[in-house]
Amino acid sequence: MSSILKGKEVVKRVKEDIKRDIVDLNEKDIEPTLAIVRLGENPDDIAYEKSILKNCEGVGIEGKVYKKDLNISTEELINSVERLNEDDSIHGILIFRPLPKHIDEDIIAKTISPLKDVDCMNPLNLEKIFEGDMKGFAPCTPKAAVMIMDHYDIPLKGAHVVIINRSMVVGRPLSMMLLGKDSTVTICHSKTKDLKKFTNSADIIVTALGRSKYITNEYFNKESVVIDVGISFDEKGKMTGDVDFENVSPNVNAITPVPGGVGSLTTSVLLSHVVLAAKNI
Amino acid sequence: MSSILKGKEVVKRVKEDIKRDIVDLNEKDIEPTLAIVRLGENPDDIAYEKSILKNCEGVGIEGKVYKKDLNISTEELINSVERLNEDDSIHGILIFRPLPKHIDEDIIAKTISPLKDVDCMNPLNLEKIFEGDMKGFAPCTPKAAVMIMDHYDIPLKGAHVVIINRSMVVGRPLSMMLLGKDSTVTICHSKTKDLKKFTNSADIIVTALGRSKYITNEYFNKESVVIDVGISFDEKGKMTGDVDFENVSPNVNAITPVPGGVGSLTTSVLLSHVVLAAKNI
Repeated sequence: MSSILKGKEVVKRVKEDIKRDIVDLNEKDIEPTLAIVRLGENPDDIAYEKSILKNCEGVGIEGKVYKKDLNISTEELINSVERLNEDDSIHGILIFRPLPKHIDEDIIAKTISPLKDVDCMNPLNLEKIFEGDMKGFAPCTPKAAVMIMDHYDIPLKGAHVVIINRSMVVGRPLSMMLLGKDSTVTICHSKTKDLKKFTNSADIIVTALGRSKYITNEYFNKESVVIDVGISFDEKGKMTGDVDFENVSPNVNAITPVPGGVGSLTTSVLLSHVVLAAKNI
Repeated sequence: MSSILKGKEVVKRVKEDIKRDIVDLNEKDIEPTLAIVRLGENPDDIAYEKSILKNCEGVGIEGKVYKKDLNISTEELINSVERLNEDDSIHGILIFRPLPKHIDEDIIAKTISPLKDVDCMNPLNLEKIFEGDMKGFAPCTPKAAVMIMDHYDIPLKGAHVVIINRSMVVGRPLSMMLLGKDSTVTICHSKTKDLKKFTNSADIIVTALGRSKYITNEYFNKESVVIDVGISFDEKGKMTGDVDFENVSPNVNAITPVPGGVGSLTTSVLLSHVVLAAKNI
């Protein structure tokens, strides 16, 4: 019988911690506040924004949306971010990405105060993750993956973890986080030869391919722990992960579902960062 | 018959490139100059300094030593570094590490201008390596390891590379560099279970353990390419690598010697960074 590693339980615990911290902060007259900077009217951004605002309200964080024109210049956006940096009533800043091509994202990333950078965009915060320093802000998705494994007591020390993704938002930071947990880490990607050889011999497989149900039973063994970070939609328009959950889940040791797994936890990680930022002022 | 991947040939090529660049720079009245900041009189530092200065002279780089008292305060060292940052006649700054414990190394690292940071100490430069951006300065040892593999046409794309080291000066940056070369990368360390299993199934093994002759034939197969970054001394006081070179070298596909392998190349990498800094002004 395999375990289904649901995000729900972890979300509950993280939100309880957040609420407890907010009680303490409110006693000091601090109301944790997240500034969301959105350019234009991309429907995905708007949906994500709604979800964040709802979650903020649920725990007692104030969410403020700063809507900007899609054609805003890099210069103007820098000015906006600098005003948020200087505004003592704002604790965290989240800028929806990717930014339009005419904006110099590198400069914007460096402009966000490292102390308010709850989505880990500033290179100074990213470099800390490279070193394995998890005390500050970390990219939310890989952090959520680690939290879900920690919550369900998946042994990470000495475990061989195969990560299928080498991006700056998932694979690279996750590999560094797991080194800090004493895992042996293999980073695979589109140029990896014989991916199955790696996944079959691993204790834990974290996949973030973005290909619906691409990963099937032959990639795993009965002891495999499968963390599915992929978010795709199948031919019927139903949200799925990288893994063929229906067929794989009975045959592995443990697996995260999609939806309801890692992805369901990322917003809570973001909110916990807002509270951390408010505590650090 | 296995190939011995000597550093000498690579050093020769790198130095030829450096000399050619320096001719161009001299024509523009630019004399590439490296500032070496040394605290105290540590014999290892002094030996390294001598070697660097000799190498600088050999290619036409000016090396200037800034000797500081071992008890210098963080504040005073910051001031010294800032003066070097502002000095237009200085192109590269190298600070010998580790710094004494009373110095805040993080602040010093951030103080060095990213444009003069030839030893890749500033977090802004390290973060670029995390992203796999190799256009700027990179930590010299892992860069030397990659250069030696490139020079001898070791295929990296799709190759499985096992790295035995997870430090910020070797293993972590090297893993990111190799992802950029499309290798599949496994990072092993002291907590890895069954290290032999990993090394035996790899195409390339890069080791930086610092244990003299610890790695023996049973870790490799006939196709293994072995890059030995370790520097130790055996019971007779002779410099050796991690690998038992004498016994292993006939039984693998290719191997770097110690001394005369990766380590012999790092100073040339440093000098190439000084030239790069001078070209970028």
